[in-house]
Amino acid sequence: MRRKSGIESYQMFRESGISLTPGVGQPLYRQIFDQVAARVSSGVLTPGFRLPPTRVLAEELGVHRNTVVRAFEDLVAAGFLVSVVGRGSFVTSAPLPASISPPPSRPSLPWVSLVSRAASAEPLGRADALAGPAPSGNPVNLSRMEPAGELLPHELLRRCLDHVLRDRAASALGYSPREGLPRLRELIAAELSRSGVPAEVDDVLVTTGSQQALDLVARALIDPGDPFLVEESTYSGAINLFAVAGARVVGVPSDGDGPDPAALERHDRSRAKGFYMMPNCGNPTGACVSAERRHALVAWSRRAGVPLIEDDYGADLNLDGVPPPPALKALDSEVIYLGTFSKKLIPALRVGFLVCPKALRRQLVPLKHAMDLGTSVLLQHALCEFLERGYMRAHLAKVLPEYRARRDALAAGLSEGLPDGVEWTPPARGLVLWLQLPEGSDPGAVCEEASRRGVLVTPGAIYSPTGRSRPSLRLAFCGEPPERIAVGAQRLCRAIDAAAGRGRGSGSTRAPAIDVL
Amino acid sequence: MRRKSGIESYQMFRESGISLTPGVGQPLYRQIFDQVAARVSSGVLTPGFRLPPTRVLAEELGVHRNTVVRAFEDLVAAGFLVSVVGRGSFVTSAPLPASISPPPSRPSLPWVSLVSRAASAEPLGRADALAGPAPSGNPVNLSRMEPAGELLPHELLRRCLDHVLRDRAASALGYSPREGLPRLRELIAAELSRSGVPAEVDDVLVTTGSQQALDLVARALIDPGDPFLVEESTYSGAINLFAVAGARVVGVPSDGDGPDPAALERHDRSRAKGFYMMPNCGNPTGACVSAERRHALVAWSRRAGVPLIEDDYGADLNLDGVPPPPALKALDSEVIYLGTFSKKLIPALRVGFLVCPKALRRQLVPLKHAMDLGTSVLLQHALCEFLERGYMRAHLAKVLPEYRARRDALAAGLSEGLPDGVEWTPPARGLVLWLQLPEGSDPGAVCEEASRRGVLVTPGAIYSPTGRSRPSLRLAFCGEPPERIAVGAQRLCRAIDAAAGRGRGSGSTRAPAIDVL
Repeated sequence: MRRKSGIESYQMFRESGISLTPGVGQPLYRQIFDQVAARVSSGVLTPGFRLPPTRVLAEELGVHRNTVVRAFEDLVAAGFLVSVVGRGSFVTSAPLPASISPPPSRPSLPWVSLVSRAASAEPLGRADALAGPAPSGNPVNLSRMEPAGELLPHELLRRCLDHVLRDRAASALGYSPREGLPRLRELIAAELSRSGVPAEVDDVLVTTGSQQALDLVARALIDPGDPFLVEESTYSGAINLFAVAGARVVGVPSDGDGPDPAALERHDRSRAKGFYMMPNCGNPTGACVSAERRHALVAWSRRAGVPLIEDDYGADLNLDGVPPPPALKALDSEVIYLGTFSKKLIPALRVGFLVCPKALRRQLVPLKHAMDLGTSVLLQHALCEFLERGYMRAHLAKVLPEYRARRDALAAGLSEGLPDGVEWTPPARGLVLWLQLPEGSDPGAVCEEASRRGVLVTPGAIYSPTGRSRPSLRLAFCGEPPERIAVGAQRLCRAIDAAAGRGRGSGSTRAPAIDVL
Repeated sequence: MRRKSGIESYQMFRESGISLTPGVGQPLYRQIFDQVAARVSSGVLTPGFRLPPTRVLAEELGVHRNTVVRAFEDLVAAGFLVSVVGRGSFVTSAPLPASISPPPSRPSLPWVSLVSRAASAEPLGRADALAGPAPSGNPVNLSRMEPAGELLPHELLRRCLDHVLRDRAASALGYSPREGLPRLRELIAAELSRSGVPAEVDDVLVTTGSQQALDLVARALIDPGDPFLVEESTYSGAINLFAVAGARVVGVPSDGDGPDPAALERHDRSRAKGFYMMPNCGNPTGACVSAERRHALVAWSRRAGVPLIEDDYGADLNLDGVPPPPALKALDSEVIYLGTFSKKLIPALRVGFLVCPKALRRQLVPLKHAMDLGTSVLLQHALCEFLERGYMRAHLAKVLPEYRARRDALAAGLSEGLPDGVEWTPPARGLVLWLQLPEGSDPGAVCEEASRRGVLVTPGAIYSPTGRSRPSLRLAFCGEPPERIAVGAQRLCRAIDAAAGRGRGSGSTRAPAIDVL
C-alpha cells in the first residue's frame, strides 16, 4: 500500500470532519480519541492510513500539541493506531474474515432422542406452557419480584466500578479464585455474623447469584430419583433446579407457624436429600416460620438425616424494622445457608453466596468452579467497594420505608375491596403478598380478567411442585410506586369479583404474567 | 432520643473533622458526600444525629451554600440522611441486628451418603489431588491460560461501564431477558456472520462465559451412563462437566489432520450424545483440524446421529493473520457452536454464547435461565458498548502482535534447547503450545523439576478423559512477556534434560501448577 504524504493525509483527515467542542465536560483529548476511534471502526479511516503529525493537527484544531499527543497515545494503547518512530501514526490492520460457505441441507439429527431427561423436566416448560398473550397498555405489574428501577443505586454503583477500574485496573479483570474473592468473603462473613448468622470466612462460597448456589446444592446432593422436600408453595426457580437434577420433589404442608411437624415425621425414613425452605419471608407466601418451629426443624433434620437448605433471599428486608427469629443456620451449623444481593441491592450484580457446612466444602468448591469458572471478579470488587463505603446500609435505609409504603398501599387497597373468603396476611418482610382464594376459584381466570383490567398477578400453581395448588395468587409489591399499587389493588379486587361471578367458566390455565422470579 | 440543638450538633460535626481540598479533581460536593458517608458508616455520626444547617456548614467550610445542598441531596438520595421539612437533615436509622445464639453441637449429618454421584465425579477432584506444594519465588508461569494483565483494556472497559451507567442508569441493573440482551445477540450474530459462521439473532443464546454454555449443553444432552466423545487430549473444564452430567467420556485419537475417521466409525452405533471439539486451536494441543477433515466430520455426525459441539474459544486469535478453515457450524447448521469473550477480551466479563440449532432452543432457553436467572445485564450492556465503539477490533490489533511475539519467543527458546525426541509444532492460533515427551518420560517429574528451576507448566494427564495420557506438557504463552518466556523456555529445556537423566525416578504424579483453564 502506498503511504499517503502528510499533506494528502491531512486533507482526508480534515474531510472526515473531526471537530472539538470545548467546555462540554468531556476533555479535548477524549473528544479526539472518540472521533478517531469512531472513524476507524466505521472504516472512514482505513488500515494503514497515516494520521497527520500531531503538531499539524494541533494547529488545525486550535489545541495544545500535548492534547493531540495524549489522544494519540491512548489510541495506540487501545490498538486503533500504531506509531512508528520517525514515520508517524497509522491505523492498525483489521483481522481477516474467514471464508463463508452456505450450509448444505440434510436430514436433521435425532434431537428428540438426544435430549436428556434433565432438559425435559416438566417444571422447566411451565412458564412457556402457561404464558398467555402479552398484556397491552401499561398494566400495573404485581407479577415480577424485581427491585424497582427507581430504587436501584446506579450512581453509587457507578462510583464503585469507576474506582475499582482506576485503582485495581487489570487486576480486577481476570478469573476469580475458586471460592470467590477473599475480600468479599470476609465482608459477607462479617455482615452475617453481625446479623446473627454464624459464618467463618472459609465457609463462604461466592456464587453467580443465589440461583447458582441453589443449582450447586441441587447437583451436589441429588441423584436421579432421590426425594427432595420443599414447602408446599415454594420458589418456582428452586422447583426447576431440583427437577432438572432428577429429584422427586415433594411438598410439605405448612400451618401458621411453618412446615407441619407431623408431615415432616412421615419423611423421617424417606432418604430425602434435603429440605429447601425460606424461613424468613417465603416466596410466594410471605410467611415467616416461628422461633419455636425453627428449633423443631433443626432437631428433625438431625434426627431424620435430612439437611436443611435455608434460602434467605430477603435478608434485611424487614419492612417494619423487626428482625426475624434466629436463622436456622444460627441454630445448626450443618444448615446450608444461601444469600443474595439481587433483591436487597442489584440483580445485575449476579452475586450470591452459600455458607457451606465444612463437610461439603471439598465437593462444592470444584463443582461451583466447573459450572462457570468463577463469578465475575469485577462485580465482586465493585460489591466490596459498595459494602466498605457503607453504601449498603444507606441503600437499605432508603428502600425499606419505600417498600413498606408499597406494601401498605397494597394492603389498604385489598382491605377495602377484596370479597369475603379471600385469605391473606400483610407480610412483615420481603416483597410479596399471598392471596388464598376461596375453594373452587379459578386463579387462571382471575389472572386473565385482572390483565384485561390492567393489573398483572401470578397464579399460585407455578409455585407448586406438582403444578397444582389450592387457588391462590402471588402479588409482588416492589416494582410499582404506591399510587399505582393502590390502583392495581382496586382493579384486582374487581377482577376477583367478576371472575367469581362467572363461576368456573373456561377453567383456563393460561396466565398473562408468568415469572419464575 | 433527644435531638441535639443546631449549635451542639455543629460542634460535634466540626470535631468529626470534615475538611475540603479544592482543586484535587474531586468536586467539593463529592468530597462532602464521601466524608459524611464515611462517618455515618463508621458510626462517628449515629442514627438520628442532626447535621448542621446547610447555611452554617457552608460558611464554616468556606464554600457556596449550593455545594452543601447538592452534597446533602445526594446523601439523602443514597439513604445516608433523611430530610424533614423545617427540622433539618438527620442520619438514618440502621436496620436492627438479629439475636445471636451459638449453635449446639450434635452428631453430624450423614454427608457421605448424601453427596450425589455428580459431585463425586472423579475428574472434579483432579486439580486438588494433583496439586503439589505452591512454588516459591517469582516463577515464569506457563501454566495458566488467562490473558495477560498488561494486555487487558481496563480503561476502555471503564469508559463503557461509565457510559452505560450514566446513560441507561437503573435499566442496566435488572434481570436479563432469558436469551440475553437483544442488542448483544444482534452484535454477536453480525460479528459471527462476518467471520463466516452463519448465525441468526434468534439462534444466539448469551451465557455466563462459554463454560456455562458447555455446562448447558452437557445437561441438555447427557443422561447418566450416556457415552460422550471428546478429543483424546481436550479441555479439562469440559471433561469435568461431562463427568458431572454422568457421561461415560470417551477419547477419540487424532492424527495430523484432526480426529481419526477410522476411530470415529467405531462410534457410529455407540449412541454417543455428542462429540465435543475445538477445531481451530485445540486446548491443550494448539492443533487445527484440516478443511477436508472438517467436511468428513460433519458428514459422520449426520450419519452417526451424533451432534458436534464446536468450542471456538480462540476465535480471532489468529497469530499469523491467517484465518482457520471454515467453521464446522458453517458446514452444518446443526452443529452447536460455543464462543466466549474471556480469552480474546476480558475473563471478568463472564460473557459467552452458544449458537443453538433450532430444534434445541425450546430446551436450552429455560434451562439456561434456571441455572442462574440470566447473565448480568450490566456486563452485557458494557460489552455491547465495547463492540459498538470498535474497541474490540482495536484491542485485537493490539494483542495479536503481542501474543505472536510471545509464541515466537517460546518457539525460539524451545528450538534451541529441547533435547531430541520431544515433538511439538508452533501453533498458528490460540495461546498454548503442546510438547510430546519421549515415551517413558515422567511429566510429573518434569513439572516438579521445572518448578524448582523457576518455570511452571502443566502435565498432559489433566487433559485426558481417563487421567492417563502419553507423556506431554502444555505451555501457555499468554501470561508472561517475551523476555520472561525466553527465560522460562530455557529453564524448561534444562528441566526436561535433568528429569530424563534421572530416569523414571519417583514416578510422582503431583505437579506444582494445575489449572483447569
